[in-house]
Amino acid sequence: MAVPGPGYSITMRVAAPPSASAAGDLTTAVGQAGGVITAFDVVESAAGLMVVDLSANALSESHAEAITAAVNAMPGVTVRKVSDRTFLVHLGGKIEVTSKVPLRNRDDLSRAYTPGVARVCQAIAENPEDARRLTIKRNTVAVVTDGSAVLGLGNIGPAAALPVMEGKAALFKKFAGVDAWPVCLDTQDTEEIIRTVQLLAPVYGGINLEDIAAPRCFEIERRLRELLDIPVFHDDQHGTAIVVVAALRNALRVVGKDITDCRIVVSGVGAAGNAIINLLLLQQPGEIVACDIAGVVYDGRPGMDPNLAAVAARTNRAGLQGTVHDAIVGADVFIGVSAPNVINGADVAAMAKGAVVFALANPDPEIDPLEAQQYAAVVATGRSDFPNQINNVLAFPGVFRGLLDAQARHITDEMLVAAAHAISDVVAPDQLNASYIVPSVFDEKVATAVARAIVQASGMGRTGGGAKESAALSSAVS
Amino acid sequence: MAVPGPGYSITMRVAAPPSASAAGDLTTAVGQAGGVITAFDVVESAAGLMVVDLSANALSESHAEAITAAVNAMPGVTVRKVSDRTFLVHLGGKIEVTSKVPLRNRDDLSRAYTPGVARVCQAIAENPEDARRLTIKRNTVAVVTDGSAVLGLGNIGPAAALPVMEGKAALFKKFAGVDAWPVCLDTQDTEEIIRTVQLLAPVYGGINLEDIAAPRCFEIERRLRELLDIPVFHDDQHGTAIVVVAALRNALRVVGKDITDCRIVVSGVGAAGNAIINLLLLQQPGEIVACDIAGVVYDGRPGMDPNLAAVAARTNRAGLQGTVHDAIVGADVFIGVSAPNVINGADVAAMAKGAVVFALANPDPEIDPLEAQQYAAVVATGRSDFPNQINNVLAFPGVFRGLLDAQARHITDEMLVAAAHAISDVVAPDQLNASYIVPSVFDEKVATAVARAIVQASGMGRTGGGAKESAALSSAVS
Repeated sequence: MAVPGPGYSITMRVAAPPSASAAGDLTTAVGQAGGVITAFDVVESAAGLMVVDLSANALSESHAEAITAAVNAMPGVTVRKVSDRTFLVHLGGKIEVTSKVPLRNRDDLSRAYTPGVARVCQAIAENPEDARRLTIKRNTVAVVTDGSAVLGLGNIGPAAALPVMEGKAALFKKFAGVDAWPVCLDTQDTEEIIRTVQLLAPVYGGINLEDIAAPRCFEIERRLRELLDIPVFHDDQHGTAIVVVAALRNALRVVGKDITDCRIVVSGVGAAGNAIINLLLLQQPGEIVACDIAGVVYDGRPGMDPNLAAVAARTNRAGLQGTVHDAIVGADVFIGVSAPNVINGADVAAMAKGAVVFALANPDPEIDPLEAQQYAAVVATGRSDFPNQINNVLAFPGVFRGLLDAQARHITDEMLVAAAHAISDVVAPDQLNASYIVPSVFDEKVATAVARAIVQASGMGRTGGGAKESAALSSAVS
Repeated sequence: MAVPGPGYSITMRVAAPPSASAAGDLTTAVGQAGGVITAFDVVESAAGLMVVDLSANALSESHAEAITAAVNAMPGVTVRKVSDRTFLVHLGGKIEVTSKVPLRNRDDLSRAYTPGVARVCQAIAENPEDARRLTIKRNTVAVVTDGSAVLGLGNIGPAAALPVMEGKAALFKKFAGVDAWPVCLDTQDTEEIIRTVQLLAPVYGGINLEDIAAPRCFEIERRLRELLDIPVFHDDQHGTAIVVVAALRNALRVVGKDITDCRIVVSGVGAAGNAIINLLLLQQPGEIVACDIAGVVYDGRPGMDPNLAAVAARTNRAGLQGTVHDAIVGADVFIGVSAPNVINGADVAAMAKGAVVFALANPDPEIDPLEAQQYAAVVATGRSDFPNQINNVLAFPGVFRGLLDAQARHITDEMLVAAAHAISDVVAPDQLNASYIVPSVFDEKVATAVARAIVQASGMGRTGGGAKESAALSSAVS
């Protein structure tokens, strides 16, 4: 099912005889080995030799090696060097810290550093709110992880999680102009994580928790929201929930159903599942039935932790028991944030007419989306090589842009709902169809629309937001 | 003594009658009020009115107000608005986080973020050393403070300290290409600071401690050096010590003395004083006598803390007692890192011939440098409006450039000495004189020379430093 993608792209430097057919022979060899050529650049050309940089997408590390071996086995051809383009992009890290102020001469230095900076420090010491105007706190978010639940990789620790947090920081800047900084903590102790984030908070205008395992992530978020006067947002929970609700809103428009009439099965009650259920409950759905690895979640099920018990208390009013295969029969919507191959085509066939299937497990979804498409009206996944990618990039940049612009101290359920509606409404009625229920991640309207929705939901929309100018900065003289 | 400087510069927007003499009248009014005009820009000009942006340096906030009032009192003249240029520079913070990688399309996203990033994470999980090549750890330093001893302002807390840390980060980038990030901790508990820095360390290749009060700073640095496998450097200690030793080396060249023959009085045994004494002791000085607020430090003095007792044990072999005025008689060198007006002209007159006086208390030195110059052969201060400014900017950027390039795990005394010698040697023999014992902070050769000295002292100089390429990044195919 998988196709070679740019996540596994290599560049081979190849020495070959300069025959008329050389280029064709090389690309044919790559293609026969299953690779997809993406670039062919001649580096050097002489009478008896040509040197070419041949870039290709592969399926995996071993597939890339097989492609290289196939090229190297051609008569007269030598692969001199193989570069992994993904690793090249990461060399030395993906983000940097740059100065926004000139430092050309002593006058610049006297204003941005000593002695001038002392007056700015004193102004903040006298009026702490000035930190939101006169420092990076105004535009800066911490991306905090303990490395315990990174992508589909699991508990790989803080150092190995850093490339993801750097990537997230790069996306924050690219899509919403937010300065984000990776905080990868060398502890997985709930109390230590909470205390450390609290100690770091003076520099930041918001906290984005990231890739922290459930159930620890729930307590960390709840306690930090109580302790801090800046918004705290666990992206794996709420970012995912926002995009799922946005996508579901449009999917139900496509099939002509109202959420208040829908039976929704949610498979997976971890960080994402919990937040999706909470956000869906705000939309008055007909019914939600949650399932986990032990089957349907119902009130009174033995051995549930407090978190799961809370889910049971708020869902499955009919008290259904059994497996996900039982729960899905007749359901209008299936949302999977769990594991590969949890359901099959027969399960989807047993759903109500106009079924909506979101199979979001990464990298391998709950059901092969091509199989799901045979029975469902709308299918979405987390993958970039299928239509309807449910991608948090649609939410988190705009959410924090809005929170920072509003100088919000807390994030509310109303903001999450507003963000979801803003994303779904970027898809115009004439664009909406079963293969286009969410906008492209590269659609620049998305972050702006989400930010505006957050600012309005914060109550700042009427006044236009922004900070008042302080007397120290600028004063009118009568 | 003080003169109006750019740390207190204002821009007044002035409406005035467009007479031939208006410009002259305005600048005269500013000058008579003691201001120094730095710019005169006509914003608007009409038949009956001209609007001018008048920029001027002042001595203080109240002086700026007096200048504004003087202009506003002129017949027909109105000051419409006063902007403080120092505050304008700080608006929204002085640094930002930017992406080093392209994110134009889905292929870029697949390499820098999911799914490609997963392979980079796995590589680091398997070989943690790869974090120094494949993440920002390679080039990134934390600038850590608790806000307890900020500039001359004292204990103003973490939020008010942030403008200084941002400025420092901007200087790190400007002078040495180092990515530095402010970590302003909302605690002044030694154990919490140590633990928090330890938990943050995975992201960083070095820790720059900054503006942390003594004696807490000593234990924090010592313990972190034991706990971490990245170098830890308290700039207020070692940055200052490096530049003092560099300046002293050149000052002694000017007066033709050898440090092994010199009696050196150090006034102030806080963070800087301690580090200066330690670094001087490595140069085999003739004698060092330390003084603090209670007078000369001697072995057996009642009431000393362990830190001061350690200083007493290593200095003042003659067991001198008394005040700084007693200690300075006949001394070759006075180094003040203490408080304003600790010594006077008579004290300097009582020093040995060819006396060297470093009066480094900020913003007001231990003695008016103009007074000291009447009796001393070489005078240096921490101020930018006198020759021989002892400024840490000469040291810290190059020190961390070198530490990062060498992938050093620890910082050694040999590195500190090497850095000091590198700074002093940037002043060529034909440039050296009593008013030029340290290079300009804008001399681009300084950071490069310091970094090279650190790399050589680390033992990496011979191999040329740098990381080995990993098999994952690039492999030769036979």
